[in-house]
Amino acid sequence: MTISLRMKQAPALAAVLALVAAGAAQAQGSKEAEAAIKYRQSVYTVIYNNFGPLGAMASGKAPFDAAIFKRNAARVAFMSSIAPDTFPEVSKTGNTKAKPEIWANKAEFDKLMKDFQDKSGALASAAQKATSVDEVKAAFGATGAACKACHDKFKAD
Amino acid sequence: MTISLRMKQAPALAAVLALVAAGAAQAQGSKEAEAAIKYRQSVYTVIYNNFGPLGAMASGKAPFDAAIFKRNAARVAFMSSIAPDTFPEVSKTGNTKAKPEIWANKAEFDKLMKDFQDKSGALASAAQKATSVDEVKAAFGATGAACKACHDKFKAD
Repeated sequence: MTISLRMKQAPALAAVLALVAAGAAQAQGSKEAEAAIKYRQSVYTVIYNNFGPLGAMASGKAPFDAAIFKRNAARVAFMSSIAPDTFPEVSKTGNTKAKPEIWANKAEFDKLMKDFQDKSGALASAAQKATSVDEVKAAFGATGAACKACHDKFKAD
Repeated sequence: MTISLRMKQAPALAAVLALVAAGAAQAQGSKEAEAAIKYRQSVYTVIYNNFGPLGAMASGKAPFDAAIFKRNAARVAFMSSIAPDTFPEVSKTGNTKAKPEIWANKAEFDKLMKDFQDKSGALASAAQKATSVDEVKAAFGATGAACKACHDKFKAD
């Protein structure tokens, strides 16, 4: 009698264990997502902090500093090579402004990302030898436009 | 009478305005500090995300992938050139694990930071042509030790 009761309880116990395991897997999943989102936002924070001063110089709000411009432009270009790695599928859900369209329209997203890399690379090249803001304005504008094109399409407000 | 009352109130008004101005300056200060701390933590998050997989390979927990090792080591070395810029005086106070000793012992901090740059640079160089984990283990260990030396001294638990 006791034994048969235990045997009847076995499926229920298995179901409970399955739920516990699923819950743990989900918690693991969101922890992984959280870490991936944190990494992505960190990469963009580094980009933002280096691109901002370039904008101030390009718009004339800050005096042109060739050394800083060159340094920051090189950093933005380098960070653009990390950026694509920060959009793993797992990071689709969570506290993020990255739209799900990124993963649904991967080819288009990749194209815009490539454009960001190309334009920031050209900006870094132009900054290498620039002695006045006029020599980098066009490349800065093109990079800003590349940022905007991707944000408009794939980043929530 | 009215005029003399206003004149008597003037110092009090000046005191209130001074307080308001001080409050605004402090709010501005902490906003600036917050942004600086966010930038710093972002730089270290990027370092952490790239250094972690190197540790997994160096310790044998993950198989050696020469391309990933080379790529991540280059990223860590590059980020180490940004790191020193993320410790402005304003970022001393706020939600940060950076100890005030950093700014009190700037020379020692700078030395440890330079060591991190040297060691991660050597790691990136070693990774360039490495075909096995044995060729990068020593340089990886030296970089990890450089991280630890600075964290032990200048980072709160």
